[in-house]
Amino acid sequence: MAAVVLYMSMSLDGYIAGPNQSVENGLGDGGERLHDWVFNGKPVPDDLKRGTPPLQGANKQVVDEFMSTGAVVTGRGTFEAAGGWGGDHHDGVPIFVLRRSQPEPEWARFPLVTYVPDITEAVESAKQAAGGKSVMMHGATAARLALEAGVLDELEIHLVPVLLGGGIRLFDGIPPEHIELERVRVLEGDGGMVHLHYRVRP
Amino acid sequence: MAAVVLYMSMSLDGYIAGPNQSVENGLGDGGERLHDWVFNGKPVPDDLKRGTPPLQGANKQVVDEFMSTGAVVTGRGTFEAAGGWGGDHHDGVPIFVLRRSQPEPEWARFPLVTYVPDITEAVESAKQAAGGKSVMMHGATAARLALEAGVLDELEIHLVPVLLGGGIRLFDGIPPEHIELERVRVLEGDGGMVHLHYRVRP
Repeated sequence: MAAVVLYMSMSLDGYIAGPNQSVENGLGDGGERLHDWVFNGKPVPDDLKRGTPPLQGANKQVVDEFMSTGAVVTGRGTFEAAGGWGGDHHDGVPIFVLRRSQPEPEWARFPLVTYVPDITEAVESAKQAAGGKSVMMHGATAARLALEAGVLDELEIHLVPVLLGGGIRLFDGIPPEHIELERVRVLEGDGGMVHLHYRVRP
Repeated sequence: MAAVVLYMSMSLDGYIAGPNQSVENGLGDGGERLHDWVFNGKPVPDDLKRGTPPLQGANKQVVDEFMSTGAVVTGRGTFEAAGGWGGDHHDGVPIFVLRRSQPEPEWARFPLVTYVPDITEAVESAKQAAGGKSVMMHGATAARLALEAGVLDELEIHLVPVLLGGGIRLFDGIPPEHIELERVRVLEGDGGMVHLHYRVRP
């Protein structure tokens, strides 16, 4: 069933990027460790589709899953840190980026990208654009806003077997009311990966 | 094989207790949610052995495991917040509590408890006292110090399907050098639980 799903690689201590993260240092210091399971330790390529080495088992299954979504919603920080994925995350699907201001020319040149100020509007637009497929959400800010607004359906956490000790946490500043989750699927992949899939309870 | 194993219930967002944790409010506001899988939503009893309702499957397996360890190492905060487990965590095994100062009389009355200033010394004493069984470690401070000192062998995280949104994190202030883990076992229990067992790589 089509859903709005957050896909994120996270260390066991909750980090999605290392310290000193910036547009120039997208994954933060040492943060590429969190993506080794996808890229076999190679630098994260601009073009995800061409740069991904052969995967197998559960790791392949979840990558195939998010690379089959019909639209992407992301925060500005994540988008810019990833170089805007060269303007195409996968398969030419529309990308909705959260930001309140008009983009600078370098960020305005991507035909697939729409800038939206509000998470609810971004999710609604993405669902319509996805044509019945699921929507991939990405980034900590988008996740936080979507959880607050109640527009996130599911989470797929790629749990990396490492303690990073510092950096940017996935879950920071989310509402203090408990958000209950329903465990949907647990998959074990190469490299000690555990892929955890939860549904957000209404 | 006997090992020093950290056993902790943790929310998906990394918390082991809710906000406003204190000796009087041991699990913090709403923190009992993290132990529902053991106590079926009832208050956490002083006597773990008598208070635990019937469990089954993976939840039973991991509780049986930590209730079969031969010694306990814990930080002072965790120990006092738990009321010192009435002086007996399980089966009368020795308990080693980290603290630098001499205990007040109310905390000095437990024959099974030894106060030790140093984590390495606490772990060494616990291993000897455990008589070939594994050592249960408990609490965020003990975990942090043991990871720093390199005396923690394994982690068993009882991952609770909830976002707590605030409180005390298990992994805070650990060294910024990456600590690599080896996935040993993943078990799915009732109530959406996922029990993650990792070995700390040397």
